[in-house]
Amino acid sequence: MSFANTPAPPYYAVIFTSQRTETDAKGYDSTAHLMVKLASKQDGFLGLESSRDQNGLGITVSYWESLEAINRWKEHISHQKAQEKGKKDWYSAYITRICKVERDYSFSE
Amino acid sequence: MSFANTPAPPYYAVIFTSQRTETDAKGYDSTAHLMVKLASKQDGFLGLESSRDQNGLGITVSYWESLEAINRWKEHISHQKAQEKGKKDWYSAYITRICKVERDYSFSE
Repeated sequence: MSFANTPAPPYYAVIFTSQRTETDAKGYDSTAHLMVKLASKQDGFLGLESSRDQNGLGITVSYWESLEAINRWKEHISHQKAQEKGKKDWYSAYITRICKVERDYSFSE
Repeated sequence: MSFANTPAPPYYAVIFTSQRTETDAKGYDSTAHLMVKLASKQDGFLGLESSRDQNGLGITVSYWESLEAINRWKEHISHQKAQEKGKKDWYSAYITRICKVERDYSFSE
C-alpha cells in the first residue's frame, strides 16, 4: 500500500481508525483485500491509504469524489456483510470520520 | 497511541501520510514523541491518531478546532525545524491533507 494519487481538492475522505482483535487473521486479511479491490471499482473512488501497526491499531483513509459515492459504498451489500463481521469478530473498536478535503500539499525526494 | 476523543463535528483534521527512510531512527523517534507532546499543548488541539506499518508507511491524523489552529501549529518554530529535518532525512515522501470533518460514528465492544 502506498500514497493515493488524488486530484486537486475539493474531494472527500473517509478516515477509518480501528483496533484489530486477535481473532481470525486469515479471514480478516482475505476480506480486507477483497474490500480494497471492490472499493476501487466503485464510481467516485479516488484512492486509498492504509497502515496498521504492530499493536493492531490501523488507519485507513479512502478518498472519494462525493458524499453520494461514500454513501453508495457504505450501503454496498458485500461491504455491509464485511462491516457486520467487523463488529462481530475483527475489531474491538473503530471510529469513522467523513471529511471534505479542502487543501493538500506534498513532498517527495 | 489510540483513538482520539474528538467532540461532535464539525472540526478539522490534518491527514499526514508519510514514507519513512531508514535514516536516523533514534532522532526521528525522539522528535516525533516531542512533536506529539508539543502539539497536544496548542490551543485548538483536539487529539491525534497514528499508525506506522512494518514497511515504514505511516498515517498520522491530528484533529483541530479550526483552520487557524492548524496554521498556527504549522508555523510553530519547533515544528518548522522538525519539518525541515523531515524533508532532509526522515521522509522519502509525504502528503498532507487539510479536511473538515462533517460526520463521524463509532463502535466499541
